[in-house]
Amino acid sequence: MSLTNATPLEVAQAAQLGSRKLAVLSTEDRNAALTAIHQALADAKDEVLAANRKDLEAANKAAAGGQLSQSLIKRLDLGKPGKYEDMLQGILDVRELEDPINRTTARTLLDTDLTLTRVTCPIGVLLIIFEARPEVIANISALALKSGNAAILKGGRESSNSFAAIASIISRALQSTAVPSDCLQLVQTHDVIKDLLALDMYIDLCIPRGGNKLVRFVKSSTAIPVLGHADGICSTYLCADYPVEKAIRILVDAKTSYPAGCNAVEQLLVDEDALGRTFPAVAKALLEKGVSLRCDEASLAALENANIGDKTSVQGATDADFHTEFLDLILAVKSIKGVEEAISHINAHSSHHTDAILTLNEDVANAFLAGVDSSSVYWNTSTRMADGQRYGFGTEVGISTNKIHSRGPVGLEGLTIYKWVIKGDGQVSADYGAGEGKRRWKHERLPVSEGDEVARSEEEKEVLRRFRTGEIRL
Amino acid sequence: MSLTNATPLEVAQAAQLGSRKLAVLSTEDRNAALTAIHQALADAKDEVLAANRKDLEAANKAAAGGQLSQSLIKRLDLGKPGKYEDMLQGILDVRELEDPINRTTARTLLDTDLTLTRVTCPIGVLLIIFEARPEVIANISALALKSGNAAILKGGRESSNSFAAIASIISRALQSTAVPSDCLQLVQTHDVIKDLLALDMYIDLCIPRGGNKLVRFVKSSTAIPVLGHADGICSTYLCADYPVEKAIRILVDAKTSYPAGCNAVEQLLVDEDALGRTFPAVAKALLEKGVSLRCDEASLAALENANIGDKTSVQGATDADFHTEFLDLILAVKSIKGVEEAISHINAHSSHHTDAILTLNEDVANAFLAGVDSSSVYWNTSTRMADGQRYGFGTEVGISTNKIHSRGPVGLEGLTIYKWVIKGDGQVSADYGAGEGKRRWKHERLPVSEGDEVARSEEEKEVLRRFRTGEIRL
Repeated sequence: MSLTNATPLEVAQAAQLGSRKLAVLSTEDRNAALTAIHQALADAKDEVLAANRKDLEAANKAAAGGQLSQSLIKRLDLGKPGKYEDMLQGILDVRELEDPINRTTARTLLDTDLTLTRVTCPIGVLLIIFEARPEVIANISALALKSGNAAILKGGRESSNSFAAIASIISRALQSTAVPSDCLQLVQTHDVIKDLLALDMYIDLCIPRGGNKLVRFVKSSTAIPVLGHADGICSTYLCADYPVEKAIRILVDAKTSYPAGCNAVEQLLVDEDALGRTFPAVAKALLEKGVSLRCDEASLAALENANIGDKTSVQGATDADFHTEFLDLILAVKSIKGVEEAISHINAHSSHHTDAILTLNEDVANAFLAGVDSSSVYWNTSTRMADGQRYGFGTEVGISTNKIHSRGPVGLEGLTIYKWVIKGDGQVSADYGAGEGKRRWKHERLPVSEGDEVARSEEEKEVLRRFRTGEIRL
Repeated sequence: MSLTNATPLEVAQAAQLGSRKLAVLSTEDRNAALTAIHQALADAKDEVLAANRKDLEAANKAAAGGQLSQSLIKRLDLGKPGKYEDMLQGILDVRELEDPINRTTARTLLDTDLTLTRVTCPIGVLLIIFEARPEVIANISALALKSGNAAILKGGRESSNSFAAIASIISRALQSTAVPSDCLQLVQTHDVIKDLLALDMYIDLCIPRGGNKLVRFVKSSTAIPVLGHADGICSTYLCADYPVEKAIRILVDAKTSYPAGCNAVEQLLVDEDALGRTFPAVAKALLEKGVSLRCDEASLAALENANIGDKTSVQGATDADFHTEFLDLILAVKSIKGVEEAISHINAHSSHHTDAILTLNEDVANAFLAGVDSSSVYWNTSTRMADGQRYGFGTEVGISTNKIHSRGPVGLEGLTIYKWVIKGDGQVSADYGAGEGKRRWKHERLPVSEGDEVARSEEEKEVLRRFRTGEIRL
């Protein structure tokens, strides 16, 4: 990982050249680089923690001056018991994931001795802008190398000493591996970002992690594709038939387990049939957890009728409350007449991140799951489930509300693309056509790999069925 | 399909609302709309051809004034024998393709009664800007509806009467179907495009088909993701071991079967060992087909030694020739020392569209296929194979040189994305973790659908194997 004073153009060009070498390395070579990074960071724990203490000192000074919050300072501290070890384990966890590249995902026999194959490959050069959490640089570096991508990294300035220390250790570690060290480059000044965003010839994908101001700035400043989400305005639609105890558990989790998370619920849509039934108990439970409610007229009246809340904790909602990512213990509440209105409201007001319905009615649930245009849609669970680790991706590089490429939590697969490979024996396009003397395309789907035993014909499916019923035996 | 004088904002908003209804229609409803469009266009052939004759008259006048080429006029003519019928058949062909949406592509058991499913869905609203070929509007409309996407269409102005006639017939036909007619809207003036490109709140993907000037303009003018290719600078690397007859067939096809195509070869990279062997015969064959060669020093010398070509047909190449999409019977030729140099040259000079190697050496071929960073990479065939119909997609909406989402020829699959669906029973995120009393994630991969007949066990694989060898019979 370089830390030079190279210009943004030199950084990007070097990353692209490095990415081309990295793209053709074997699984073993990439995994060996992760092993080397893990070992080097384990050996250099004292060095990294010393750098981290510098960041903490600066942060504490800033906090005393009122410029930094205590919760940010907590996130900066890499010396907390277990945190450094978790960072190290994260590298090994990524190493153990299935290799996402060089996978054959489709095969077609075009003609005799003419096969078309779709093979996954790295995207190329990533530009990842991330928050000031020191362990994130190790995690992102591991994801990039595992997926065969070069990455230009820019982390939040409050962790700059920690990042510089980790980057130089990773750089040294890579020198003993097959991975060119230009494949991971840390840039240290914020003003470089603008120049990098202009280099769409060299950078293939930008992943900004952080507040919506950053994401909007990046999206409006570059021709490079941007993967991420600006807002996390998640909704939950509560139907009258849903058991109150479960509704309380789900909504308390969705709102209070991590209010600053992008997957925290920000809007509770209460079916009007639930207003006088489950809603007051749900509201009471949320209020007890310190949540403030911003209610529309009908939901406000329902709470007044039930004598729930007071004038500070329960207030009337404004229009803006239904377009706001509170990132705090605040919840906007709206009464809704039926699933179609819930779907329309969510499609117009949510940020297409994660939305949930709570109901026992499968038809209503299916209408909601199909109609809501969001990257994740849930039936009877908490919006906080939206997370790559929870989805079983091992880890995530971010959450995407894009409508193309990768949607929802993005793991290794979202850092890959594919190429189409044809292997032939001198066939040419003019050989084929509808006319006389022309060859016809076979276009026969082949199993994606030799070991893949998919039943190819109706007869083969029938054989499997009969084996499963015991009619055919081995 | 609307043809109103609505503002760009109204067009885009109506398309988004329509897209939400279209997205939840059944396969049958979408197919029925294609049947209705097919029938309406079959019934209205005279009306469409009358409009097409107006376009042809205007074009012939422009041609007489020197503003239009005869080859463009040929492409405008929908009255040529069989062309209208081909257009109609194209709609039915798209209808018969497998439904690309509502397909389950991954399933994971997160925990008991808690499943995660990845389901394909439409992208939403497409903005498609296309060339002045009248039949293309029917084709694109069919692809959009089949994939559940709304589309705002803008076609080349030389076909504007034909487009308007076809659009109003499609609009009428949709009125008898479940598809809202706002799902397909034709905009008629070029100046609307700039306004539409600003509406990234409503338009999810822009597909410009046409010259690189258009594509570059679109890419630099919008925050909407753009799918397409600006250039088609394709290369073929000729190794010394490849039989000369096959090399000639492949290169003549790649250069001359459709020189204006984006998949025509523009650069011939001749391995230096082939310069004195197969290259002169290949060059001779290309010259006989009317191709002009722009040769670097070594390849020029090889042709002089062999007495091939003359001063008009064989010229020295400039640097610019290796960055040029000729779209004409011109081929740049460069001598190359080994596969690594071929890969480097292509990665630096090609447009990452389609590049080929001609060799009998499998190791050399595999190094090339892995190392060349292009959307399609070929071994021993013509770059002209890069085409959705040839790949077996039925038809294509365009060819993408993007590094994300969809690469190479883009068929129906490239017009889809997915959503993540979780169905649960009251589970919440705080239940799970590494601590005591916490639940562990199961993260068990499930077969992707009930009807998916993959052999799930070694025994079932054995059953299939024995059936294939005839040992087990139905």
